[in-house]
Amino acid sequence: MSELKIAVVGAGLMGADHIIRIENRIVGAQVAAVVEPDEGRAKAALADAPNAKWYPNIEAAIADGGIDAVLIATPGQFHEPVLLPALGAGLPILCEKPLTPDAESSLRIVEAEIATGKQLIQVGFMRRFDAGYMELRELIASGSQGELLGLHCAHRNPAVPDTYHNDMLIFDSIVHEIDVVRFLTDSPIKSVEVKYMKRNELSPDKLLEPILALLETESGVLATVEMNVSVQFGYQVKTEAVFQKGIAEIGRTAGLNLFAGGQIATAEHMSFKTRFAAAYDSQIQRWVNAVKIGKIDGPNAWDGYLAAAAVEAGLSALHSGEKVAANYEKKPAFYR
Amino acid sequence: MSELKIAVVGAGLMGADHIIRIENRIVGAQVAAVVEPDEGRAKAALADAPNAKWYPNIEAAIADGGIDAVLIATPGQFHEPVLLPALGAGLPILCEKPLTPDAESSLRIVEAEIATGKQLIQVGFMRRFDAGYMELRELIASGSQGELLGLHCAHRNPAVPDTYHNDMLIFDSIVHEIDVVRFLTDSPIKSVEVKYMKRNELSPDKLLEPILALLETESGVLATVEMNVSVQFGYQVKTEAVFQKGIAEIGRTAGLNLFAGGQIATAEHMSFKTRFAAAYDSQIQRWVNAVKIGKIDGPNAWDGYLAAAAVEAGLSALHSGEKVAANYEKKPAFYR
Amino acid sequence: MSELKIAVVGAGLMGADHIIRIENRIVGAQVAAVVEPDEGRAKAALADAPNAKWYPNIEAAIADGGIDAVLIATPGQFHEPVLLPALGAGLPILCEKPLTPDAESSLRIVEAEIATGKQLIQVGFMRRFDAGYMELRELIASGSQGELLGLHCAHRNPAVPDTYHNDMLIFDSIVHEIDVVRFLTDSPIKSVEVKYMKRNELSPDKLLEPILALLETESGVLATVEMNVSVQFGYQVKTEAVFQKGIAEIGRTAGLNLFAGGQIATAEHMSFKTRFAAAYDSQIQRWVNAVKIGKIDGPNAWDGYLAAAAVEAGLSALHSGEKVAANYEKKPAFYR
Amino acid sequence: MSELKIAVVGAGLMGADHIIRIENRIVGAQVAAVVEPDEGRAKAALADAPNAKWYPNIEAAIADGGIDAVLIATPGQFHEPVLLPALGAGLPILCEKPLTPDAESSLRIVEAEIATGKQLIQVGFMRRFDAGYMELRELIASGSQGELLGLHCAHRNPAVPDTYHNDMLIFDSIVHEIDVVRFLTDSPIKSVEVKYMKRNELSPDKLLEPILALLETESGVLATVEMNVSVQFGYQVKTEAVFQKGIAEIGRTAGLNLFAGGQIATAEHMSFKTRFAAAYDSQIQRWVNAVKIGKIDGPNAWDGYLAAAAVEAGLSALHSGEKVAANYEKKPAFYR
Repeated sequence: MSELKIAVVGAGLMGADHIIRIENRIVGAQVAAVVEPDEGRAKAALADAPNAKWYPNIEAAIADGGIDAVLIATPGQFHEPVLLPALGAGLPILCEKPLTPDAESSLRIVEAEIATGKQLIQVGFMRRFDAGYMELRELIASGSQGELLGLHCAHRNPAVPDTYHNDMLIFDSIVHEIDVVRFLTDSPIKSVEVKYMKRNELSPDKLLEPILALLETESGVLATVEMNVSVQFGYQVKTEAVFQKGIAEIGRTAGLNLFAGGQIATAEHMSFKTRFAAAYDSQIQRWVNAVKIGKIDGPNAWDGYLAAAAVEAGLSALHSGEKVAANYEKKPAFYR
Repeated sequence: MSELKIAVVGAGLMGADHIIRIENRIVGAQVAAVVEPDEGRAKAALADAPNAKWYPNIEAAIADGGIDAVLIATPGQFHEPVLLPALGAGLPILCEKPLTPDAESSLRIVEAEIATGKQLIQVGFMRRFDAGYMELRELIASGSQGELLGLHCAHRNPAVPDTYHNDMLIFDSIVHEIDVVRFLTDSPIKSVEVKYMKRNELSPDKLLEPILALLETESGVLATVEMNVSVQFGYQVKTEAVFQKGIAEIGRTAGLNLFAGGQIATAEHMSFKTRFAAAYDSQIQRWVNAVKIGKIDGPNAWDGYLAAAAVEAGLSALHSGEKVAANYEKKPAFYR
Repeated sequence: MSELKIAVVGAGLMGADHIIRIENRIVGAQVAAVVEPDEGRAKAALADAPNAKWYPNIEAAIADGGIDAVLIATPGQFHEPVLLPALGAGLPILCEKPLTPDAESSLRIVEAEIATGKQLIQVGFMRRFDAGYMELRELIASGSQGELLGLHCAHRNPAVPDTYHNDMLIFDSIVHEIDVVRFLTDSPIKSVEVKYMKRNELSPDKLLEPILALLETESGVLATVEMNVSVQFGYQVKTEAVFQKGIAEIGRTAGLNLFAGGQIATAEHMSFKTRFAAAYDSQIQRWVNAVKIGKIDGPNAWDGYLAAAAVEAGLSALHSGEKVAANYEKKPAFYR
Repeated sequence: MSELKIAVVGAGLMGADHIIRIENRIVGAQVAAVVEPDEGRAKAALADAPNAKWYPNIEAAIADGGIDAVLIATPGQFHEPVLLPALGAGLPILCEKPLTPDAESSLRIVEAEIATGKQLIQVGFMRRFDAGYMELRELIASGSQGELLGLHCAHRNPAVPDTYHNDMLIFDSIVHEIDVVRFLTDSPIKSVEVKYMKRNELSPDKLLEPILALLETESGVLATVEMNVSVQFGYQVKTEAVFQKGIAEIGRTAGLNLFAGGQIATAEHMSFKTRFAAAYDSQIQRWVNAVKIGKIDGPNAWDGYLAAAAVEAGLSALHSGEKVAANYEKKPAFYR
């Protein structure tokens, strides 16, 4: 197969980004279809993907026969109606996080995938492709600093759009730490608890934040997550790992140092788009390469389910103020 | 008064350090008395304080009439029997932390001080004299980054002596954060809760640590404290302050950067003695200067009592696993 | 044109690297030909370029008709015999630095290119595609810190291969600074002078280094270059820019910070391959994109000639100990 | 001797600073005399030294008999007339740099000191007491990184007063590097050469700067010094040391890191008063301690002479554009 023909589903912010990425920076792939009910959005996206055709829905794109793989970039509540037909057609899928909004629907997807007999789904937890997280994971796995005992995570946004509501602190934002803590520790999240920091009066009225989430893994690692979506100054994702013998830290800004106006300064990111630009590129490139040999190369549907189940615990913890245990189905042999 | 004549009570580790400090680095003061029941220890200390006399107890030193002030450097359980006679003699006192081991006895000291009609006691929370904490406090007070919302504190020791037992995580170690969080926020600790990180197998058997303490101030600030006494690599005390508009960080190591062996490295401290050397000097110098004009210049007996009461909440939290509220008496007018 | 068919000339270290790059990381291009007289080397390279054919020389590759562009990755003394036939065939060329080893031969190339009527040659000064240099250039151009007054450059290698001889300090190593200083300042090198630092006894016998080169631009900027090829600890390329109102610095290592063994450390690069990996990728991708629309997107043949002429001044300065002026032909209208 | 009674000569900027230092931060010393012809200045200074008497000249202070040591803080051209009578009276002297403005007069001082039979003079090169320089010197002496090959020094002031003229670039500013390069390398400066960076148009009209001085030591180390007195942004003194096996760097700013407004920043110094505050304190304290046991503890008169002779070479280099060798008399046995 020379060029992987991808149908990008959803031509919003993320979808448009992926279309530009595939057309310009990904080797061996092209956007063959843009699946988007909104004609205006679709037309705008097609301008960046000259060889792509527009389809109003995934079924039409599949029926037309010209696609090898599907990249789902719609909001999470619209994933299932795309995932099921794509699985039905036996197409490899890169599904933006979350797999689906809740554990029950995620489990349906898992079952549908198992029914195909093949792992077709990769979930878009792009932090697993960030150089810092990868390096930290290797350090943990090496054992050179002894056992990992805890993690301190900071996830800070300068601001959030009007559509952002309080539960999104968990299912849209902390879901990244839920997945990446498991990625780093190789152990599922056992419980979630949420504490409130002093409320930021610059935060939109409907948000009670910043919060401090405490994630415990089954292996006993305690991860703290400062989730902060109105910190104004920049976009910052950092992790400090506490080992038996030392500490490791990732996510500090690098770049040109400017000595001016009485201080020495380095620019911080203002958006996930630059902070994780290389991670997104690497994620898609590696997925394209893997798909061509019939594989995936990243978190699978079961990882997506585990994240959805831990998110449910997190929402319950957010609402109740209690420490809430995450409940998981037994892992199917299919994913071992 | 030209030279302040100080009686140093206790010639152990801290006392010996203070004697060398006063004799060599403090202007306008000298060690006039070493109060120490152990003759060998006393003799060793006198070698660094050629003009000092040895007394087996504070009463004898007071009776002899040659001292202007008292510096108490014994362990906390021995403070009260020194504080009361010194207060009785109307002598200014610098008392190493803690004021006393519990709130009840601290309250007795407070009452004894009030009875003298004058603030004579300063408590040795030396972090208040550290340049980083002072700078951070000024930043908070300036309001330039908006309100303070939270603090992330790390307090890491390479190892602890055999005499260190589990409760000392709270009353000997976190007591520093208990005081300094209040110093930074100008608000008492309202509650304490303790979480366990994965236990460090390199830690002595009797210790369950590292732990994560959550301190809430009455003003609503949430402070996390990673208390870690077996981290091997170095002695590190850091604080990250979360504001409405930005983040500030203190406690990162500075000094010569060495580019060798494939990396760029800076030395970390290995002991509080170097980490807080300047803070100790500044604390004693400012106390000496203040005493000469009949004042104190640092945390007072009431601050000592508040710390003791918050430590009690912390110990209860450590033992129970619950979030425990700190209880304080009403602040006497004397300390307003 | 869908995929740009590239003939890679030379399958040594650099050529092999470029072949892997084009096949795996560059969008819209493929290696169609490997031009390499050594059959063993050619075969090894073809393993990474399954669709490429092997040719012993460029003339054969051109005659066969299947190539759209040429990437020359042989040592500099072999560039001219490839450049001339490729120009003759009207093919776009990315020529690794240096264009040719001396000004006279570079000028012949310039004349040959002018004769084609079109700018076909781009020279592989990849530092122009490094994020740090690009950011610094923008800062200089912005004028926000006032005029640029000077540059302090450090170019440090852990070690060099046996084939490295003393003149290569100038024509193989400092040639990078010669080009990039001009890139940053938009002004040609006016003179070169070379000073000796204390000789490193760990350096191979035939080398007298580290050296300090002083490059003056026609615009009056003085650039110092520490050229150091036996510094053992790592591969490091840094620049500090001195402005009227401030200082900027690029090239400091970033990545995971490890707090262990009494220090805080960050890994340094050990090779140009990682230090400039992103720059090489970006250079080739942008060249491929530009070639498809009939352009180049980087330093041209005239830039190559200017570097060659400045290198001649540098060699003369190295040999004589004198400050040597660079002599340039008048810039042809063709390159304006 | 309990308190060392010091006569401070000169109550200008430096003198006033030293008076405050001795009275407030130096153990075992007091200002007993202020020697200053200007009555207004003297009165102002006496406000900070309540036990001091005012004398219009050093002879009067000596005659009065109440002083144990002399600290000379006048401009360099006025040092000799104070040094000679103080030496005549056998008084220990801390003389601010330079010892005298030229080698000839410095040699007269050396001879006068030898005639007393005792090393009485210490010269105020305070950088030798800076923690960074001391740590770097130890690293060099340890040999752990192999031989020292070169030094890159930056000496940057935000601005200079109106009285600052062009020769002061050498005798007032670079004189610090002249001494400290020798201190670090334990080898005298063999030659000086001066290059011009692009002139800073924000610099006063009479100044041609920044400049780049090249100092060669007799041991073969090449030190570059960027001397820059109008860099606006801050006061910065940095040194990078190039070893056989690695690089060391001192002088980077530390302190509170503020993440605000899209960047991460640390404050830089704005004056030598804060940059070298601890070095000045340490210098004076160690001098006081040494004087009490009949010694000095820092650079001696011969060091002052060597600096003066190297400054002469530097001025000649500045005026001529040539590389100028420093000439030194043979070192008297007295200083071995």
